[in-house]
Amino acid sequence: MLNKQMIVQTLLKERSFTPMVVKAKAFAPSNIALCKYWGKRDETLNLPITGSLSISLGNLGATTTVVPINEASDCIIFNGKVMDKSMPFVQKISNFLDLFRMDQNQNMHYQVETSLNIPMGAGVASSACGFAALVSALDSLYDWQLKPFELSILARLGSGSAARSFWHGFVEWECGIALDGMDSYAKPFPHDWKALRLGLLLIDSNEKSISSRVAMQRTLATSPFFDAWPKTQHEDMILLKKSIEDKDFITFAQTAETNALTLHALMMSARPQIVYSKPETLNMMDKIWQARREGLNVFFTQDAGPNLKLLFLEEDIDAVSRIFPLLKVIAPFNLLDQEC
Amino acid sequence: MLNKQMIVQTLLKERSFTPMVVKAKAFAPSNIALCKYWGKRDETLNLPITGSLSISLGNLGATTTVVPINEASDCIIFNGKVMDKSMPFVQKISNFLDLFRMDQNQNMHYQVETSLNIPMGAGVASSACGFAALVSALDSLYDWQLKPFELSILARLGSGSAARSFWHGFVEWECGIALDGMDSYAKPFPHDWKALRLGLLLIDSNEKSISSRVAMQRTLATSPFFDAWPKTQHEDMILLKKSIEDKDFITFAQTAETNALTLHALMMSARPQIVYSKPETLNMMDKIWQARREGLNVFFTQDAGPNLKLLFLEEDIDAVSRIFPLLKVIAPFNLLDQEC
Repeated sequence: MLNKQMIVQTLLKERSFTPMVVKAKAFAPSNIALCKYWGKRDETLNLPITGSLSISLGNLGATTTVVPINEASDCIIFNGKVMDKSMPFVQKISNFLDLFRMDQNQNMHYQVETSLNIPMGAGVASSACGFAALVSALDSLYDWQLKPFELSILARLGSGSAARSFWHGFVEWECGIALDGMDSYAKPFPHDWKALRLGLLLIDSNEKSISSRVAMQRTLATSPFFDAWPKTQHEDMILLKKSIEDKDFITFAQTAETNALTLHALMMSARPQIVYSKPETLNMMDKIWQARREGLNVFFTQDAGPNLKLLFLEEDIDAVSRIFPLLKVIAPFNLLDQEC
Repeated sequence: MLNKQMIVQTLLKERSFTPMVVKAKAFAPSNIALCKYWGKRDETLNLPITGSLSISLGNLGATTTVVPINEASDCIIFNGKVMDKSMPFVQKISNFLDLFRMDQNQNMHYQVETSLNIPMGAGVASSACGFAALVSALDSLYDWQLKPFELSILARLGSGSAARSFWHGFVEWECGIALDGMDSYAKPFPHDWKALRLGLLLIDSNEKSISSRVAMQRTLATSPFFDAWPKTQHEDMILLKKSIEDKDFITFAQTAETNALTLHALMMSARPQIVYSKPETLNMMDKIWQARREGLNVFFTQDAGPNLKLLFLEEDIDAVSRIFPLLKVIAPFNLLDQEC
């Protein structure tokens, strides 16, 4: 059976493990899927059953600094605080770093300092941009000069959606068919859309009740509807890409909303059910649908959590902000405009 | 193409239309599906795609009195008030009565007086018991002495789930395969369960946002998951019947809850989405799931509306009522105990 270490060894064959700098720093933007990633064809390698398409959050994401240290274990610093080694996400990062402890590098440990400039609890996955920034920082540290698709494959081994966090704008992750996943990486879907706006709507910042990993497994194993998911996902992908090319906002945003609702329907049909929505989530959905009935073009997407991410155009910022005063608005294609 | 009138003519062939009494009165219990009816194989005749299984609400239901009148139109009285002829449900009843205006009965009109003893807005469909009581009253009026399966077929022409409202206790409606639906009627699933309790949990008594009829059509026409529905429905039916025979409450109630959640997932995957739940619905579901995690055996089912119907056993009435003080508790197999 293929494991992560073999993939890393293949990608880093004949690459040096001599640090070229004392410390290396990298930034990776967070990303939100418009056509979701849900269900793995390989649990170990995080290989998806379907393709997915995301939009990056511009300057919002993770900045990670990596420093090789002479210690018996890694030191993980998050938003300025040293994290306890017993924390699951610290273990997840250390396990990932284990993949790079091979040959002469066997006993190397790292201080990994990550800062997120995304409002905590905004429902934007930090593991995606976190693993992408970490892989980029390692690439700089050792001056591997890996190609973007190779970085994408490495980051995927840490967290599936991290494969999409190496670019600004729209990014497509192809599911691939190879057993070793060497054809399963992301690449830009190179279409600008200056007027596009995202809005982060915080509903509940508590930790999610069930991890995406477990939720994906359960959906795949128990939902009577799972067999129909890849086909609808494939159709949504075609619609989304076409609507981006055509700058057809209604089709674009409606498809993203439908894709999210279909995914949450799929999860609700798992046994036991998976329901990420909170009462306030439904309340906000009702407000969005009501606004649409009144002619405002505002749509949403929802990931594995209760928060909603709104989709609208620049011309409607004021109208949307009146309904959702606490909305954090992001202009994914106007990087200089953004507050960080 | 087959129409309702042909079915009525077939069933009432050589039956008299001479009233045998001045007025006829009948009661029909309301019923709640544990394995839901959703999706029609024939829109006109209300023929379902799958079978369904319900529990009747004992003494809660509709009492209907029918009086032939010498008027140009029917007079519909509901809970003591004459209803305006423009109301959709009055038209629905008149259209149904049209089916019986044939031959010498062509110009006959009726005063139909229906009283419901179900708390209004409790999310218990009144059309099911209403059409069943009306058909029974007509049968008495003309002394047709139709067999129960014939009454069930006639009531189905008014409202699908009315086919199940002719008996107390568990009732199974077989989908049948005949084009004329003569094999699609309900019959008792004759198993008592004295300790079983239903609880009506009122969440929102506003009229539903979308009728079941339209919602069924849209689900069937647009949900990418609909193809998988009949199979899961069939499996739930087998589980439910077995668990009733075995008095295995956990399997019974869990299957009913799963069936409802799967149906609502199915509806959420329709385009546009159909979401009957309100924020408070999710809040109540969370309370139920929390109570279960704490060891209380309470489950729910949900129909085409925001209200929940709880399932539990007699021994847990106090514990369940502490969590839901406003719950209306029904003992479906202890008819004498019930308040009406």
